[in-house]
Amino acid sequence: MSFDTLIEKIIKTQNPTVVGLDPKLDYVPAYIKQKKFKKYGKTLEAAARAVFAFNKEIIDEIYDIVPAIKPQAAYYEMYGWQGVKALNKTIRYAQSRGMYVITDGKRNDIGATMEAYAAAHLGYTDVGGEILQSFGADALTVNGYLGTDGISPLLSLCRDYDKGIFVLVKTSNKSSGELQDLAFADGKTVYQTMGAMCEQWGAEAMGKLGYSSVGAVVGATYPEQLEQMRAELPTTFFLVPGYGAQGGGAAGVAKAFDKNGMGAIVNSSRAVMCAYQKEGCDEREFAKAARREVIRMKDDILSYLDRISLE
Amino acid sequence: MSFDTLIEKIIKTQNPTVVGLDPKLDYVPAYIKQKKFKKYGKTLEAAARAVFAFNKEIIDEIYDIVPAIKPQAAYYEMYGWQGVKALNKTIRYAQSRGMYVITDGKRNDIGATMEAYAAAHLGYTDVGGEILQSFGADALTVNGYLGTDGISPLLSLCRDYDKGIFVLVKTSNKSSGELQDLAFADGKTVYQTMGAMCEQWGAEAMGKLGYSSVGAVVGATYPEQLEQMRAELPTTFFLVPGYGAQGGGAAGVAKAFDKNGMGAIVNSSRAVMCAYQKEGCDEREFAKAARREVIRMKDDILSYLDRISLE
Repeated sequence: MSFDTLIEKIIKTQNPTVVGLDPKLDYVPAYIKQKKFKKYGKTLEAAARAVFAFNKEIIDEIYDIVPAIKPQAAYYEMYGWQGVKALNKTIRYAQSRGMYVITDGKRNDIGATMEAYAAAHLGYTDVGGEILQSFGADALTVNGYLGTDGISPLLSLCRDYDKGIFVLVKTSNKSSGELQDLAFADGKTVYQTMGAMCEQWGAEAMGKLGYSSVGAVVGATYPEQLEQMRAELPTTFFLVPGYGAQGGGAAGVAKAFDKNGMGAIVNSSRAVMCAYQKEGCDEREFAKAARREVIRMKDDILSYLDRISLE
Repeated sequence: MSFDTLIEKIIKTQNPTVVGLDPKLDYVPAYIKQKKFKKYGKTLEAAARAVFAFNKEIIDEIYDIVPAIKPQAAYYEMYGWQGVKALNKTIRYAQSRGMYVITDGKRNDIGATMEAYAAAHLGYTDVGGEILQSFGADALTVNGYLGTDGISPLLSLCRDYDKGIFVLVKTSNKSSGELQDLAFADGKTVYQTMGAMCEQWGAEAMGKLGYSSVGAVVGATYPEQLEQMRAELPTTFFLVPGYGAQGGGAAGVAKAFDKNGMGAIVNSSRAVMCAYQKEGCDEREFAKAARREVIRMKDDILSYLDRISLE
C-alpha cells in the first residue's frame, strides 16, 4: 500500500521522475490537430481527441523507462467534458502500459464532498449496487487548507486500495511565499505546519518501504525549503514540480532525496512534451524527442544521487 | 461586472440564497433512477442522466424565486466524464432559465495552469482559431493557498466577462480551524490574512454596486468569524455554506450581511434536494418539496434582515 508500488517502479526503472502530461493544444504537432479538425471540425471533441492521440504516442515511447505520468486536470477540463473524457482515457491507457498515474487535481473540500472526490479520482462509485470505477488514478494531489476533515476520506482509500495523495506544502510558483512562508507565533511557517500535518496524517497509512501514503508537493524552485522539508518529514514522499521549464535545477532537486536516492519523484511537463520544438526536429518525431528529453533529465538528476535503492 | 449581475438577481427575487446541486444518486428519487437504469443499465451514463433529470426538474421549479445554483464539481466527477457532461448540461440549463451559476470546484494551481482552469470554468478556449466555451459558469470557488499567481489569471476574466470568484477564507467544516485559525506573529489568523488578500485582489476588479469580483467563502457554522469578516472586508461578497444540514442557523447567517441586507448569498444543498424525503411526500413531488424548502429558507433568513436593497 501507500507509495510502495510507485517506489518499486522507481527502483525498477532507476528513474525518479514523472512526466507531466499537460497537453495544451499549442504543444500538439500540427499534423495531429489537422487530422482531428478534418474529421470533427474545430470543436472541443477534436481538441480532446488530438490531446489523447498526443498522450498515447508519448506514453508508448516512454513507458519502459519512466515509472509514472502526471496528467494535470486543468488542461483537460479546458476542453470541456470531452477533454475530461480524454483524461480518463489517458489514465487508463498509461495504466495498461504498467505506468503509475498521479492525477494533478489539487482537490479540496469538506469531508462529505471529499468522499465524492476520493471516489471520483482514486476509488469506486456505487451505481444501483454496481461498483464502478470513474477516473481511477493511483494518486491524487490535494490541498490541505481545510484540515483533517478534507484528508480523512482519502486515507481509507490509501489503506484499502494501495493509493496515495500528495498534499500541497511549498508550491513552485513565484508567489507561493505570500501565505506559505508566513510564520506563526511558534516560529513555524505555514508550509512547515502543513508538512507536519502530512507526517501526522501519514502515520495512519504507512507503507512497508519507509514512506506513508500521504506525500507532499514541494517545489524544485525552492531548494532550501526542499532540503529543510526532507529533514523535517522523514516518512513523507515528495512530488517535486518546477524542474526545467520553471527554473529548478538538478543540484537543487537532489535535496529532495534521502541518502538512498529515495523519497521523491521529480516532475517535468513542458520540456518533455515540447522537446521536439526545442530540438527543431520533424514534428512527427515528437514522441522520440520526448524520450530523448526523459533520458537527459534522468541522467541529469542521477548525476547528483549516489544510488537509487532501498538500502 | 463582478458580482453586480448576481446582486441584481438577488434584489429582483428578494432572495439572498443559492441552491447547491450536489446530487448524490441517493438523493435522486427511485423512479428517475429506475427509468435510466432500464435504458442504460447500471452505468455511469445512467447515473449521470439521472442526476441531470433530477437537477432539471428542480431548476424548473425554483428558477423564478432563487437567483443562483451552485453545482459541486465533486458530485459530478464521481460519475466520471459522463457526470462531468451532466455538470455542463446543468450549468447551461440553469443559465437558459436566467439563473446565475457558481461552480463549486475550489480550483487552485500555479499561474499557467490557473489560466487553463479559468478558461475551462469561466472563460473561453481557443481551438484552431475557434473561440469555444467549455463549462462557462458565472463564478467559481477557488483556494488561495498558492497566493497571487493562482488568482491573477481569473481577475482578467472577472473584469472582461462579468465573472466572479469566491476564495476559501473560513470554511464551514469542523477541522477548518486546524490551519485557518492559527495566528501569525502579527496576531492575525490565516483566515484573516486570506480575507485581507481577497480585499487586495478585489481592488483590481471592483463592481458598480459596492462589491468586487473577488468574493470569499465564510461558513455559517462560525457566526463569530462571519461577523468579524463582514466588518474587516467591506468590499468582499460572501458565499456562506453550512446553513441547515451542516448546522448553521439564520441568526448566525444574518451576520454575513451588511446593513442593507447585501454582501452575501447563503447556500443550502441537502435540505433542498432531499426536502421530499424529510417531508415524507410522494417522491414524484421532489421538486415541489424543494420549492417549499427554498421558500422556508428564504423566509427564515429574511426574518433577520431589515431589507434587501442597495440603499
